[in-house]
Amino acid sequence: MLSEFDLIKHYFRRNRPGKAVLGIGDDCALLAPTPGMQMAISSDMLVEGRHFFPGADPRMLGHKCLAVNLSDLAAMGARPLGFTLALALPEANPDWLAGFSAGLFALADAHDCELIGGDTTRGPLNICITVFGEVEPGQALRRDAARAGDDIWISGTLGDARLALAGYWKEYALGEDEHLLAAARMHMPTPRVGLGRALAALAQPPAALDISDGLVGDLGHILAASSVGATLEVDALPAGPVLSRQPLEWRRRFTVAGGDDYELCFAARREDREAVIAAGVASGTPVTRVGTIDAEAGLRFVDGSGAPVSMQVSGWDHFSGG
Amino acid sequence: MLSEFDLIKHYFRRNRPGKAVLGIGDDCALLAPTPGMQMAISSDMLVEGRHFFPGADPRMLGHKCLAVNLSDLAAMGARPLGFTLALALPEANPDWLAGFSAGLFALADAHDCELIGGDTTRGPLNICITVFGEVEPGQALRRDAARAGDDIWISGTLGDARLALAGYWKEYALGEDEHLLAAARMHMPTPRVGLGRALAALAQPPAALDISDGLVGDLGHILAASSVGATLEVDALPAGPVLSRQPLEWRRRFTVAGGDDYELCFAARREDREAVIAAGVASGTPVTRVGTIDAEAGLRFVDGSGAPVSMQVSGWDHFSGG
Repeated sequence: MLSEFDLIKHYFRRNRPGKAVLGIGDDCALLAPTPGMQMAISSDMLVEGRHFFPGADPRMLGHKCLAVNLSDLAAMGARPLGFTLALALPEANPDWLAGFSAGLFALADAHDCELIGGDTTRGPLNICITVFGEVEPGQALRRDAARAGDDIWISGTLGDARLALAGYWKEYALGEDEHLLAAARMHMPTPRVGLGRALAALAQPPAALDISDGLVGDLGHILAASSVGATLEVDALPAGPVLSRQPLEWRRRFTVAGGDDYELCFAARREDREAVIAAGVASGTPVTRVGTIDAEAGLRFVDGSGAPVSMQVSGWDHFSGG
Repeated sequence: MLSEFDLIKHYFRRNRPGKAVLGIGDDCALLAPTPGMQMAISSDMLVEGRHFFPGADPRMLGHKCLAVNLSDLAAMGARPLGFTLALALPEANPDWLAGFSAGLFALADAHDCELIGGDTTRGPLNICITVFGEVEPGQALRRDAARAGDDIWISGTLGDARLALAGYWKEYALGEDEHLLAAARMHMPTPRVGLGRALAALAQPPAALDISDGLVGDLGHILAASSVGATLEVDALPAGPVLSRQPLEWRRRFTVAGGDDYELCFAARREDREAVIAAGVASGTPVTRVGTIDAEAGLRFVDGSGAPVSMQVSGWDHFSGG
């Protein structure tokens, strides 16, 4: 049996220079923040059987648990610096640890985000990551920054992750290839860090968040924080490559209230339309304009002709939800 | 059933001014670090059935899970700033949440340490806290700073927490009052933040760590990181008020290799003896000199006359351990 110290040494301590003044191995890690920058901090906890299936592929899991945290930095417009990892494991399985750490570090290295500390213990499988980034004062993408007349934008595409879940749940019959493609979006989300940084460079930084619990529920947080309403053009919502080949009813349902998308939803000034498109190009991230922020409270859906569309949807809740 | 949002709003969001630029409710919290300071960061994960008993008192648990994190800041000499809390709960029980948050915030307020964000989800009870503090560059209490000839010091007392565990396990028969007193040390440890800050103000900051897995195992980390050995005067180790009334064999065993003490062990220059005592007085923390750092590797035990004492002990390990 691996000891706790051996486990950390073999799978999580790396012999490479990092940004931290002091990394893994003392009571605390030490970071030297860039003078004048603000620090952005977020924590996410992933539990087996709730956020991922028992027996989930450890490499994809290593990717996903860091990706959802980097997505929070992206939604704030922050540049990643480092993260801590706290891990409860039923047993110290070398194959699992090798896969998990490989998936974790592949994504961490792609974003120059260093593992600086953490904790390991025995227990029901639980992965808690806290991520640190930095952002210029006044430039963070806050939820309370939306104003009436702003454009609403979505990065990438929505709904394929939720479609994959529908496939697992047998809600919906998908071809094998279709399900594999959709499942890749569910298990390996892409944090939109580059786009977030580009948006944070705008003179009037957009209101933004990342869509984890479905567009409607998450957009609702921007509307509440900013005391505004919105109109969404439901068929302008960018469906994922697999979902876009499914019937209209499913496309509408899973773009409007999917889950696990980890795309950015943001509200930018109308005069920044070209700047937003340029930010998408600069970061290699598709961006789609999908609606408008209204002074009137509430969320309305319209079709391409501007006619109202009725949608019955709600966000995901970990306690009252499914 | 409480929703996730209601749960956070009722038990964890507070209407009071804080140090964070932006607290709970966005994708990330925003902190503005004091210019020129380094940031100290630590994560600890507590799992039901491993770190605390099933059905543990929620108020004491709220205290303990923050205390063990503040203890890591203390061991680094850092001033607390804030923390994130990720919580997996089997159910959203209002009584449990009220007790837990009361215990948590009582300690947080005593240290002016603000809850800035986190996550809640359903799952086997698991509490993960990441804590942030700041320390002057070059003044952190690092494990690799011990030098041959240094004095070894212990804050407070050792062994009462381990004695309480022995009582729970029926290893040892304790009177009811004795067990209650000892159990208070186990469930409500005192993070030595003030002492850590005072030691970090010394011109040559001591090597330090907090004793969570037993003195011998933890001191071993300082010895390894600093490439030195040590001699401990075993009967100089300060036993807790309950343990000090027990037979010599138990006193030696539980001071040398207890667990859950959350006292500081530190190695300070011999010429700083008076300064260390002054730091203890200034922070209201008893400090006891218990041994010496040696150039020769290994850990030796002696009695009051300097004669060798043989001790068979080891540290706690969450994977190969009990």
